[in-house]
Amino acid sequence: MLYVVGIGPGGLEMMTAEARAAIEAADVIVGYKTYTHLVKALVGDKPVIKTGMCKEIERCQVALEIAQSGQTVALISSGDAGIYGMAGLILEMVTKQTWHVEVKVVPGMTASIAAGAALGAPLMHDFCHISLSDLLTPWSVIAKRINAAAAADFVICFYNPRSRGREGHLRHAFELMSPYKAPDTPVGVVKEAGRRKETKWLTTLAAMDFERVDMRTMVIVGNQSTYVEQGLMITPRGYTL
Amino acid sequence: MLYVVGIGPGGLEMMTAEARAAIEAADVIVGYKTYTHLVKALVGDKPVIKTGMCKEIERCQVALEIAQSGQTVALISSGDAGIYGMAGLILEMVTKQTWHVEVKVVPGMTASIAAGAALGAPLMHDFCHISLSDLLTPWSVIAKRINAAAAADFVICFYNPRSRGREGHLRHAFELMSPYKAPDTPVGVVKEAGRRKETKWLTTLAAMDFERVDMRTMVIVGNQSTYVEQGLMITPRGYTL
Repeated sequence: MLYVVGIGPGGLEMMTAEARAAIEAADVIVGYKTYTHLVKALVGDKPVIKTGMCKEIERCQVALEIAQSGQTVALISSGDAGIYGMAGLILEMVTKQTWHVEVKVVPGMTASIAAGAALGAPLMHDFCHISLSDLLTPWSVIAKRINAAAAADFVICFYNPRSRGREGHLRHAFELMSPYKAPDTPVGVVKEAGRRKETKWLTTLAAMDFERVDMRTMVIVGNQSTYVEQGLMITPRGYTL
Repeated sequence: MLYVVGIGPGGLEMMTAEARAAIEAADVIVGYKTYTHLVKALVGDKPVIKTGMCKEIERCQVALEIAQSGQTVALISSGDAGIYGMAGLILEMVTKQTWHVEVKVVPGMTASIAAGAALGAPLMHDFCHISLSDLLTPWSVIAKRINAAAAADFVICFYNPRSRGREGHLRHAFELMSPYKAPDTPVGVVKEAGRRKETKWLTTLAAMDFERVDMRTMVIVGNQSTYVEQGLMITPRGYTL
């Protein structure tokens, strides 16, 4: 049995009961080393197989091999396993290759939701997730989505906003939005959302400081109704008060 | 103290530890009647104030009044309180009116994530949430977003897909997507995602049966890479196997 577990942003308080139960039921834990560290309190003496960044296929292979041998495995992703996590790759491998493993995807809280709650209520109207990682997606596709989402006034959550090798992507994304979103459009930034070291700040489309953003940062750009009041970022749903 | 609590889709197993703790800490529970029923197991003998559908402002007012009187209140939303839930309205009232209440938004798992896990891994690439409710949003805005999201090949999650008074909206949404998404684009439908009565099925853009959809249904439309295999709906991230 292989549980593909979304552990949420990191702290045990934002983990679901189901995710916790899956980790507790597992004989072996497999995951990227930062994430295995986050669930240490639940793991006890169980074997933990840690793999490095960008080793996704290898990590899934290891998890499937152990599960196929008869053990119960929890393959953990931060956030939700089905949102830029491990669930897709595992299911691709299971459906395209000859594994005999039962898989259950255990959903978790994704970073945009945790960041949204920390900022106030920026996601109260239609929003989208866009990953700025062009490791697996051509930049032209990403750019097209940024354009479309900005033109149609979506709130936009940027995943993987910045990392070594793509320092300029977030700045480029902001340039793409600027014909459609006003310079004073509120932007909420949350680093390590839902973790102990969480930090956050509010800025605007025009005043954005790209240097403060890293890979573990969630950037949420408002729509044309989003406002900031008393330090809270709020996107109205449309009620008349 | 007022906790605005996202209880997740409904079952206790998809609730976070933090949401559970907030409900347990509360003196009074306030919520739409269906949702208060879902958390009955946690509430015990505490007073529960249930309000009807479309009474959002009244519900928030009641919650704020009780919190201002010194009691701890848990105002509950299904899914995430910050996604088409009660968090936005509460923060709008607190920042625009003269309430003296401390508010904490407690995030929860939204329906798209629970539905995604039930279907497989349809949300592995950029996706958006669009609500088809035009009670508070002009249909022209909704239509523009559907168009833009389909043209830029987002996976699309439809919230509030159908209810009395707007039976035709989902069909109209599918018509708007049809110039951009192929007729055989996979569509996953989950009714009561994450609840005991959960039912789900897979169909395509062309074969969609709109009559089977109600207000508690999540409809997820794939992107051009999404496929169905062994009953699972999978959107590849782009790994080469």
